[in-house]
Amino acid sequence: MSNDANDSSDAESLVEEHEQRINDLVADVDDPAELGADEDDGFSMQLAGLELDRRDFMKAGAATGLASAAGAFAGCQTALPDGKTPSDSGGGGDGGSQGASASHGHFVPPGEKDEYYGFWSGGHSGEIRVIGIPSMRELQRIPVFNTEPARGYGFDDQSSEMLEQAGDYTWGDNHHPNLSETDGDYDGEYLYVNDKANGRIARVNLKYFETDAIVDVPNVQCIHGTTVLSPDTKYVLGNGEFRAPLPNDGRDVNNPEEYTALFSAVDPESMETAWQVKVDGNLDIVDTGKEGRWAISSCYNSEEATEIQGMTRDDRDYAKVFDIPAIEQAVENGNYEEVNGVPVVDGTRESDLNSGDEPLVRYISTPKSPHCVEVGPDGKYAFIAGKLSPTVTMLDLDKIGEVDDPADAVAGRPKVGLGPLHTTFDGNGHAYTSLFIDSQVAKWDIEEAANAELGSSDPVIEKQDVHYNPGHIQALEAMTTDPDGEWLISLNKLSKDRFLPVGPIHPDNDQLIHIGDGEKEMEIVADHPAYPEPHDCVFAHRDKINPATTWDKADYEGEKPFVTAENSGVERTGENSVHVKASSKRSEYGMYDFTVQEGDEVRLTVTNVEGVRDIIHGVAIPEHDVNLAVAPQDTREVTFTADDPGVYWIYCTYFCSALHLEMRSRMIVEPSE
Amino acid sequence: MSNDANDSSDAESLVEEHEQRINDLVADVDDPAELGADEDDGFSMQLAGLELDRRDFMKAGAATGLASAAGAFAGCQTALPDGKTPSDSGGGGDGGSQGASASHGHFVPPGEKDEYYGFWSGGHSGEIRVIGIPSMRELQRIPVFNTEPARGYGFDDQSSEMLEQAGDYTWGDNHHPNLSETDGDYDGEYLYVNDKANGRIARVNLKYFETDAIVDVPNVQCIHGTTVLSPDTKYVLGNGEFRAPLPNDGRDVNNPEEYTALFSAVDPESMETAWQVKVDGNLDIVDTGKEGRWAISSCYNSEEATEIQGMTRDDRDYAKVFDIPAIEQAVENGNYEEVNGVPVVDGTRESDLNSGDEPLVRYISTPKSPHCVEVGPDGKYAFIAGKLSPTVTMLDLDKIGEVDDPADAVAGRPKVGLGPLHTTFDGNGHAYTSLFIDSQVAKWDIEEAANAELGSSDPVIEKQDVHYNPGHIQALEAMTTDPDGEWLISLNKLSKDRFLPVGPIHPDNDQLIHIGDGEKEMEIVADHPAYPEPHDCVFAHRDKINPATTWDKADYEGEKPFVTAENSGVERTGENSVHVKASSKRSEYGMYDFTVQEGDEVRLTVTNVEGVRDIIHGVAIPEHDVNLAVAPQDTREVTFTADDPGVYWIYCTYFCSALHLEMRSRMIVEPSE
Repeated sequence: MSNDANDSSDAESLVEEHEQRINDLVADVDDPAELGADEDDGFSMQLAGLELDRRDFMKAGAATGLASAAGAFAGCQTALPDGKTPSDSGGGGDGGSQGASASHGHFVPPGEKDEYYGFWSGGHSGEIRVIGIPSMRELQRIPVFNTEPARGYGFDDQSSEMLEQAGDYTWGDNHHPNLSETDGDYDGEYLYVNDKANGRIARVNLKYFETDAIVDVPNVQCIHGTTVLSPDTKYVLGNGEFRAPLPNDGRDVNNPEEYTALFSAVDPESMETAWQVKVDGNLDIVDTGKEGRWAISSCYNSEEATEIQGMTRDDRDYAKVFDIPAIEQAVENGNYEEVNGVPVVDGTRESDLNSGDEPLVRYISTPKSPHCVEVGPDGKYAFIAGKLSPTVTMLDLDKIGEVDDPADAVAGRPKVGLGPLHTTFDGNGHAYTSLFIDSQVAKWDIEEAANAELGSSDPVIEKQDVHYNPGHIQALEAMTTDPDGEWLISLNKLSKDRFLPVGPIHPDNDQLIHIGDGEKEMEIVADHPAYPEPHDCVFAHRDKINPATTWDKADYEGEKPFVTAENSGVERTGENSVHVKASSKRSEYGMYDFTVQEGDEVRLTVTNVEGVRDIIHGVAIPEHDVNLAVAPQDTREVTFTADDPGVYWIYCTYFCSALHLEMRSRMIVEPSE
Repeated sequence: MSNDANDSSDAESLVEEHEQRINDLVADVDDPAELGADEDDGFSMQLAGLELDRRDFMKAGAATGLASAAGAFAGCQTALPDGKTPSDSGGGGDGGSQGASASHGHFVPPGEKDEYYGFWSGGHSGEIRVIGIPSMRELQRIPVFNTEPARGYGFDDQSSEMLEQAGDYTWGDNHHPNLSETDGDYDGEYLYVNDKANGRIARVNLKYFETDAIVDVPNVQCIHGTTVLSPDTKYVLGNGEFRAPLPNDGRDVNNPEEYTALFSAVDPESMETAWQVKVDGNLDIVDTGKEGRWAISSCYNSEEATEIQGMTRDDRDYAKVFDIPAIEQAVENGNYEEVNGVPVVDGTRESDLNSGDEPLVRYISTPKSPHCVEVGPDGKYAFIAGKLSPTVTMLDLDKIGEVDDPADAVAGRPKVGLGPLHTTFDGNGHAYTSLFIDSQVAKWDIEEAANAELGSSDPVIEKQDVHYNPGHIQALEAMTTDPDGEWLISLNKLSKDRFLPVGPIHPDNDQLIHIGDGEKEMEIVADHPAYPEPHDCVFAHRDKINPATTWDKADYEGEKPFVTAENSGVERTGENSVHVKASSKRSEYGMYDFTVQEGDEVRLTVTNVEGVRDIIHGVAIPEHDVNLAVAPQDTREVTFTADDPGVYWIYCTYFCSALHLEMRSRMIVEPSE
């Protein structure tokens, strides 16, 4: 392939690469039948461009990976990118020439506040981002799986210990933020998010906008899809994506047929893993019904291959529907194997078919490699986007438990466009599905799709170009029983030429789309660059979130002291250890200086005694790699070793008053000798 | 003091605290003369509210720290906060009711680009932020002193080694970003920034928007002010703020009179420390003239005290003017002491007075504790903001070398308001000074101030309320010889009630102010929340920055290989070490799997062979704390130990194609047995 870095030849080089790879792949295919159409709906793999126009067929760049799937695009060389840059392509509703007048209130004037909180996962940045809607301004970052000095996260003792106990990693890959629910609505208590990279789930306390717990879920290497069990957050559920030996301790490393994937349930209070379910294939995304019984996961690689050609070989994969009460009953009945302290029940097809009981997991055939699952606001359907099929499979959740053949619960399979990944809702009967390959959002009519015969429906009302290659899309409160409509965010993976260039690492592009109540056309109102790499977001009306503006010391009483000026001081706690306690207020710490001996382990406890909001005091210790952030009425602690004799000026890193520069304490480390 | 966390009683509790502290401080004052007025300009410490209205006197909260300065506010109890919340206070030009129509082009429509790059320091977050102007959208983050997984910074071998060699810290406190200059204009090559916490200076390569060098400057604990020497970036200059023993190795820890502060010059190419100058007092901020000779630093704590009361005791402090060629000559003449490999010349007052030669450093008396120094666009004046004095001291740089008494180079001292910290310029004869205590920006006439008698000028044209407590302010290209006007950013330290609440740690508030050509009134156009805690920013027109969109492999040839699919593979390099090389492209790595032995040290080299921009491939290694970001045509390396036998699915973290999920490589760690 071409390694030419010349950007202007994007389209050409991709065409070359595309053709070459298709030729290679065709040569590799053992069974020509694999190149044929999907037998079920006669459509999903017929991407030969006969029924679709150029835009619907393939876009430069985005489709190249798809083209590498075995044979999917064989024979399609006639439909090529036309070499236009995407910004040449026009596309309705860009708003490019409409300016602020078309902002629909996107612009929040100085002194006014946003109406919604948006919680963005930060992907491999490891953080959660809080973004105001509709202004799209980043209001806060919440470090979760990363370490972050401005908030002292991973620097103070408490967060350091939490990270250490959860695997001692300094990063994670967070994908799916979920708000805790009571009676099916957001209760503003917690946000839960997964770490795909290390199989963890974290909890963010929304009183303080801080991570307060992380569990390293046993037996799983990767948790991808994550959701809370509606309506009352009974569990946080995690899809184990990568198949691995169980346990992954060196056994069976060369026997992939012994690998397995697990579906995990974590208790939202104790953050301990309640149970796990062993399944076939790779688990991708998960959502639950509104009734508390069903959790629906998408599955790819039902082939259980270890290489991409094998993973995409067969034309069919599965959605898996977990019957939560049945799984709980199996655990209660003792029908499990305990692995690393966790009850693991067997939810593989073979086991379920042989058990004679109601299955723990229903396997429902779908076109191959589906991606996202979302359950609609009324809880009636689960929407499973096709990814490699241009369709969305609708499962009727009322029927799942009734039908003998789970396939009979498929209520619709509208074709929506190429590369459908995620679906969201306006609460007025419309679904919006992101089309990764088409770089579009398709709006379609849910009931029309449900009423049509499988494979024959065409419920698409409108398509909106986005820039470029959307992953998750989310409309306001779309995951509740009462979506608010008005705004939809398209989390576009590529931004290419949409912003000033900032080097080879490009930002993503989160586009704000006005959808109103769904009766008018979609309109792109604003582009917002995003640091790599948000995956998903969730919105809550501001009335549902009630953060504290200062700390309530009752929340840490007994764990940490409250240090005032009067009880500031140094106490020797051992031959080589001291405990230093200091208050802080504008513009002084409780002690102007303190002395320790070379080699001392120093435990430093700092309280901010102020009662007013937004007066934070920092605690930077030069050349000791420490920075704490102590908010009003809060106490933070850090332990370090005073290895090097000398004078070190501890200083305040949060600009707190006109005499902020003078806010210092002098640590004197006397040489041993 | 009150520890009451009730926010609504802010004003009352501050009044109480203020009164109590003034009483305490007055009781502590040894010499009543210290409470008197400044004898020089008869104004700087006369803050009794007689000449100023309420707003000009004191605002709730911000002034509390100031009130703690010994005696400065004694007797002023009559002028108290009125208990109004700041949003009650009205203030012209908030734009609150003007909406998008008053945006002056702030809103950049979808598909259009910003006109200016803004480079924000990230404070104790350790990063640089790239923000588009006028949209205020964050386009990119550049990790500098922090570690950051999304870009693999501090994760890949190269950046890890750079951080390790520069002190092995995982954070820094960056304050002052500076763009490299050629012929007095930005050349788009590099950005330099200081780490206040650990006395370091870093360089960001603007071809790749990546940090490429960090120097831990010897002999200094804290570098605060930082600038490049105009017009051709001969040095990066750093103000050592904290006084400490020289060297700080355990000697003299209890003899503060032996402590010293150093002014450092770093070579911008080699990033080695060229020389240092020992000075009296604490150095704060620095800027240089346009002629390449003078560097002007502000100084506080000329008392050389170790506690805040002593630091703010005397009514006068100094600006220091460094004569760069004279210092170079002293070094060349061998008039230095070498400490830790760096020539240190003596620039203390005593030394200079006794030398008989032209002084290396000119000490110019100013009202006490000045903060920022900025040199105006024509290079004529340096503007030294008073902080604890309501004045700005203007130094005539043409006179500095001519006058016998450096005080004669003071060309003006306009009073501008309370808590003046930083000054910026529109290029049309106006200066804009941030007023921390007044929470305002004052626009004033430079020549009018220069033409008035000292202490008598009143050149203020207009004041604009900001929200709240501004630190640095910057207008477009104000630090060049040809400022562009139009926009000014006020980096406000407190946001209080301006955004949706996000917990006790509040964002800062960067306000965008339209200034046009300076002939009309200032107007606040937008509030933008900022993660803690930007200190300063610098702007360059987009025509001056030319980042690459893919890597040029010539830039790392000889250091790192370019791995193609053909030369991907595993090579055993020792009994317990292997080198794994893999290419990457959509949607596959060069190897579907590879096997190592338990305990092996694994060096993994990954090249992205793609030629198209914005197709990044990630390299996440589960449970090994590794994530790399490999941009097109780039190679990254990471070395880790395969301690735990098992199967680990290396996966791509940058969504790159429809088959991104399937982009994996399987690392098999065989047990040793």
